[in-house]
Amino acid sequence: MKEVVIGFLGCGNIGCGVWELLQSFNKDIVHRDDVHITIKKMLVRDVNKQRNSPVPRELLTTEPDEVLSDPEITLVAEFMGGEQPATDYMLRALHAGKTVVTANKVALALNWHLLQAAAKENKAGLYYEASVCGAVPIIKTLTEALHANRISCVMGIINGTTNYILTEMMKRGCSYEEVLFDAQRLGLAEPNPSADVEGLDATYKLSIMASLAFHARIPVDKIYRNGITKVTKEDIAYADEMGYVIKLLAIAKRVGNTVEAHVYPTLIPREHMLAGVNGALNGVYIYGHACKEMMLIGRGAGDMPTASAVVSDILQAVTHTQHSYPTFQNTKEPSPEMSFDDDWETEYFIRLSAIDKPGVLSEIAGSFARNRVSIATLMQKGNATPGGRVALVLVTHKAHEMDLRSALRDLQSPDVSVDSMIRVEGRQPS
Amino acid sequence: MKEVVIGFLGCGNIGCGVWELLQSFNKDIVHRDDVHITIKKMLVRDVNKQRNSPVPRELLTTEPDEVLSDPEITLVAEFMGGEQPATDYMLRALHAGKTVVTANKVALALNWHLLQAAAKENKAGLYYEASVCGAVPIIKTLTEALHANRISCVMGIINGTTNYILTEMMKRGCSYEEVLFDAQRLGLAEPNPSADVEGLDATYKLSIMASLAFHARIPVDKIYRNGITKVTKEDIAYADEMGYVIKLLAIAKRVGNTVEAHVYPTLIPREHMLAGVNGALNGVYIYGHACKEMMLIGRGAGDMPTASAVVSDILQAVTHTQHSYPTFQNTKEPSPEMSFDDDWETEYFIRLSAIDKPGVLSEIAGSFARNRVSIATLMQKGNATPGGRVALVLVTHKAHEMDLRSALRDLQSPDVSVDSMIRVEGRQPS
Repeated sequence: MKEVVIGFLGCGNIGCGVWELLQSFNKDIVHRDDVHITIKKMLVRDVNKQRNSPVPRELLTTEPDEVLSDPEITLVAEFMGGEQPATDYMLRALHAGKTVVTANKVALALNWHLLQAAAKENKAGLYYEASVCGAVPIIKTLTEALHANRISCVMGIINGTTNYILTEMMKRGCSYEEVLFDAQRLGLAEPNPSADVEGLDATYKLSIMASLAFHARIPVDKIYRNGITKVTKEDIAYADEMGYVIKLLAIAKRVGNTVEAHVYPTLIPREHMLAGVNGALNGVYIYGHACKEMMLIGRGAGDMPTASAVVSDILQAVTHTQHSYPTFQNTKEPSPEMSFDDDWETEYFIRLSAIDKPGVLSEIAGSFARNRVSIATLMQKGNATPGGRVALVLVTHKAHEMDLRSALRDLQSPDVSVDSMIRVEGRQPS
Repeated sequence: MKEVVIGFLGCGNIGCGVWELLQSFNKDIVHRDDVHITIKKMLVRDVNKQRNSPVPRELLTTEPDEVLSDPEITLVAEFMGGEQPATDYMLRALHAGKTVVTANKVALALNWHLLQAAAKENKAGLYYEASVCGAVPIIKTLTEALHANRISCVMGIINGTTNYILTEMMKRGCSYEEVLFDAQRLGLAEPNPSADVEGLDATYKLSIMASLAFHARIPVDKIYRNGITKVTKEDIAYADEMGYVIKLLAIAKRVGNTVEAHVYPTLIPREHMLAGVNGALNGVYIYGHACKEMMLIGRGAGDMPTASAVVSDILQAVTHTQHSYPTFQNTKEPSPEMSFDDDWETEYFIRLSAIDKPGVLSEIAGSFARNRVSIATLMQKGNATPGGRVALVLVTHKAHEMDLRSALRDLQSPDVSVDSMIRVEGRQPS
């Protein structure tokens, strides 16, 4: 039997989940894999903090060296979150020849090039299934199962908090603020929810997924981003009426050497594979030239689902003598032959309010036409409000982003205001 | 750069797909993986047969030794289908130390123990992602990504032909016979469709999936099986009215050391993750103690999706020096501590026709009650037909299979006939 001694960096919710899974599952691991895993030390900020699990006090330390400089520890599992000091600690571990298993999307998305170079140089493993979508095996699927594909699209619901909020807004007909308030009370949204609701969390994950899918580094700062804070219950109701649901989608597409990557609220047809991914579930849609369409759905967060990915990575690392690394040029900047398109083409859902008087509709239609945006459907909703305004909801044909923005600028006038603009995805197979 | 010489056993649709994918993708493989793959020989039954792809004539041979006894060939990819001679050829290849990549569910499900023993003994690889659900990475997910889970349920739509037929019956309101006829005309069902429509194809795949999920050999002959040939358009219409769809599900559940495994038409609620898997798609639902619910959806058949899995397996095999094997006791018979439950509990959808006269309903209710089956909902549909019969549709609470069968035997009388019995799944989370 192989004896493996490991250390933790961090022991919050995920760390406690991994500790519990390793405790409860160790007999199976010994039996199945002929490996016995011992956790020797866990680096924490505060050894006296109340934890979810009865982690033995003597395992905890506030001294990084007790994990990073112990030669007996050959594998380090990192759950600190955030770029620093997690990146530095992981680099130290890798330089000492220790394999690193991480759930840290931020450190990976920002410093992947450094981490991978250190891992390869020292023949150490670098595993990060848990960094994207928890238990959902998107990393293994992209790097191994779909290795024989040219992937042209990866698109998903990869943030549970925003998906919960949008799902509840739809189910209950409530506003964003009401649902967020409840989600915070239930512990489903952070007290400061901005990383989730502004789409930042999703950009880190998309950066990692898209880089693997396209075999090219797709940095976070090349990803266009809009959050869900401006999605209204009216948008959701009108979308529903037109056969759509609204989801925060992370989308990356590649055509030749051109990539577009964005995270924003999106209308998708109710029949689309992603439309039924509700609540705290994550779902990722992939299109490859050989596999065609594929989708993975599962728990993208939570202590045990994340621990499932971490412990599977640990087992993979300790039962294999050879570590694999992504085969693309993993540099901080993307390779010069890649270009990033910020003038992508898509369809748009637009909600306007306009003074109900002759000529307004022609003014609106004119602004779109002048900017090469063609309207597919237009609905006038309800009667004029006391202020004399009516709601107009329209969906365009495919148009260029820059043309659309310019049409919306043109439109703004005392007679017309633009209340919402949400992009549409998935009407044609990607 | 590593040079790898491979041979094919078989070159039908899948073989041609693999040949095409390797042709078109070889530059990417060289670039990404620093490996150059050459196909040296392909064993076929008839070198003159018309093929889908322009495979060079000089690669084809009818002589097995040209593939199996060539020391230059280090990997053999098998697409012959069927138990024999495929099993014997794969065993010969493995005994010669060649790695085998196979898309053959029948040979694997029946002779896995022999193939795995030969592979381990000769330190050769045995890869079979393509044998179950085409491009869908169910094998890698079960063996690697969910390795840290105790899996209690694996359940899926794993036969495209039957899913296409049931989907079309629902969409068009047609009978089984009408849709089958069209599917055969379109090449979506075989001239002799029995392996698909009788559920046999699905039992091979379920045997492989369940064995990996439960770390225990689940032989094909332990899987209870019913096909879809008796599903009527009335069943589908009534199920729809009650909020269900009908799918051919392959289901395996484990509680302690007891396993139930079956393939049969099943009602699932319209909101269930599997309900939206339509047409020729495959979908597999998994429940693990850490990951919780998970689902994979994709193309389960077709030359390119299957080639996606085969070529990914080939690349995995040739870029890694260490091969992995399932860690359970892979013997022909399941291990003695496992027991197989044929008296499982589930809910049942039952369609009866009964003479419309006083006392009949009480007779029906009595038969169920005497056999400990409790009725959850009961609908009388329409008025008595000219023969004086009405349709009764009911769904039971959870009941034991043997009790239910005994209730149905009790029911049969000149007054009552049982037109359909279809099991219900997925009302509670598995």
